[in-house]
Amino acid sequence: MIPTAAAPVTRMAAEIREQPSALRRTLDALLPLEPAVAELAARTRQVLFIARGSSDAAALYGRYLCEVAAGRLSTPASPSVATRYRRRLDLDGVLAVALSQSGRTEEIVETLGWAADCGASTIAITNDGDSPLAAAAGLALVTQAGPERAVPATKSYTTQLAALVVLGLGLGADPALRGELARVPDAVARAVESDVDRLVSALSDVDGLVVSGRGFAASTAWELSLKVRETCGIDASGLSYADLLHGPIAVAGARVPALLVAADSGPVLAGVLAVAERLRALGVPVHSIGGGPELAAVADVALPGSDLPERLAPLALVVPGQLAAEALARRLGLDPDDPAGLAKVTQTDEEPA
Amino acid sequence: MIPTAAAPVTRMAAEIREQPSALRRTLDALLPLEPAVAELAARTRQVLFIARGSSDAAALYGRYLCEVAAGRLSTPASPSVATRYRRRLDLDGVLAVALSQSGRTEEIVETLGWAADCGASTIAITNDGDSPLAAAAGLALVTQAGPERAVPATKSYTTQLAALVVLGLGLGADPALRGELARVPDAVARAVESDVDRLVSALSDVDGLVVSGRGFAASTAWELSLKVRETCGIDASGLSYADLLHGPIAVAGARVPALLVAADSGPVLAGVLAVAERLRALGVPVHSIGGGPELAAVADVALPGSDLPERLAPLALVVPGQLAAEALARRLGLDPDDPAGLAKVTQTDEEPA
Repeated sequence: MIPTAAAPVTRMAAEIREQPSALRRTLDALLPLEPAVAELAARTRQVLFIARGSSDAAALYGRYLCEVAAGRLSTPASPSVATRYRRRLDLDGVLAVALSQSGRTEEIVETLGWAADCGASTIAITNDGDSPLAAAAGLALVTQAGPERAVPATKSYTTQLAALVVLGLGLGADPALRGELARVPDAVARAVESDVDRLVSALSDVDGLVVSGRGFAASTAWELSLKVRETCGIDASGLSYADLLHGPIAVAGARVPALLVAADSGPVLAGVLAVAERLRALGVPVHSIGGGPELAAVADVALPGSDLPERLAPLALVVPGQLAAEALARRLGLDPDDPAGLAKVTQTDEEPA
Repeated sequence: MIPTAAAPVTRMAAEIREQPSALRRTLDALLPLEPAVAELAARTRQVLFIARGSSDAAALYGRYLCEVAAGRLSTPASPSVATRYRRRLDLDGVLAVALSQSGRTEEIVETLGWAADCGASTIAITNDGDSPLAAAAGLALVTQAGPERAVPATKSYTTQLAALVVLGLGLGADPALRGELARVPDAVARAVESDVDRLVSALSDVDGLVVSGRGFAASTAWELSLKVRETCGIDASGLSYADLLHGPIAVAGARVPALLVAADSGPVLAGVLAVAERLRALGVPVHSIGGGPELAAVADVALPGSDLPERLAPLALVVPGQLAAEALARRLGLDPDDPAGLAKVTQTDEEPA
């Protein structure tokens, strides 16, 4: 067995550890662009997010941030409406925000162009300032993750979240968020030191996994379900606990444990605790990241979360899960850097319709 | 082994077979309300859908119908923004449409009330005209499914889709849709006679299932994944094929087959065929509902779809999958009418925040 606590042996492990510095560089680069976002945002009243995969999990965080923190209705785009059905919508007054770490997923570039044609103002969030996506947008928020070589997104994901906070500030979120943001890199530096051995052991012989959160942390649950599917080949559902209760809870069981993710405070925490109790009553092993001492008390394996406020907690909460997915893949004899059948840049359709 | 083609032995099987008459009653009741929808819609430019579970799968169909057929931007609401974070958004010019078969899921009723407070016009789609949801809405589109006693939604789901078509017509969709709609009950009557034995056998010993479609039929994939999870306890992902390619495809394999759902024509069919070929090249068993002769030719078990046009096909495409989920549950020794841990009316949070 490969020891999971050794020095990084994979690119993914190294890139997870680069996140504090990647976040510092990204915030230094993007916070000065807040006035430019505000100028674009002044002509809009709502947001349309265009993304796939991990970028779409980031967009889910963006939706809560824009709605709860900035009071702007936020919509996930259905790219096929643009690229397959070729239907125009009235997007006057809409700020379209496209996320792609490579900036080279053609479907995303095409959908952002469609949004502009339909009257939207446009922003790109990408890790490559020279990409077609950056060129297509009215404003590019270029994350400073540096080259990411492992296929599973880690530092390119958390730096997208940071860019979304800058977006939220430009859209008029409570300015206190700016001060809180300064605490993020240190919080992530602590999260990178999480000891995930017990969680990895608990997940090393399962038939599936249910990852759940709610509100801001629903994005973390979704992203971690993608990480586990990509790196470990384990079928992991990533769902808001509200959606979990409406049917999918039926698949959880002794061999399909739950991983609950929550900030240490906030108005959804009581519900997460209630779901944890209900899962335990059904005989489902419950593991946790965050949720404070109350959630830890009911979890089989509890990893500490973050002392960041709920609206920023997802930037740190994802990190222990990234570490666990990377280590679990190795424990299962898989290469987390290069999962079978996946590529770094995914094209949805090989040819135009 | 219980024969799957026998006369209905469960409430779920009986309710699946009631769908043609339920759809006729629903269309008779709701088509006359199209002018009332149009009057409400005239004051709005976009749609906000509020739903959970199978109603949320129906809402996904509604989003494509409103965007592609009626040219209106459509947003899935995040109910926690209303019920947990208690944040107001500017919903002036928004038509909020809440779907709940019982009309008694408190979270949905509360979120529709919040939308009205935020300035939205409101419509309820529910199977109970005396429900709190119907009372809370500016206009109620009451489906005529009749009492549904099995926990998994079947006739209450397809009648919601019919109500959404009436919504789309009221929002200005191509009036040709009205004539096409008249063909739906007969198409569903043919679908109810599908022979699903081979599909049930193919799924009777699997570790998981990936259900995928795109565009209009993405809603069918999502709903069928819920049906399989609820009735069979099998972890089934329901994803657009675009989302499938961005990571989750890694879980498909010899023991996690794929079920692809598609209309027999339309601009997403070529992509579904490409995904089918790619899955087969990875050694994944591929089964299909619909997609015409081309998809059937590459599938291991191929069930016929429907000759309805793509925008209405989901009303019939779901039916063979309902039949398969019901029969598979019985083959696995489970009671499809009363899955462990689920109730007919789900409350997301037991107490107010």
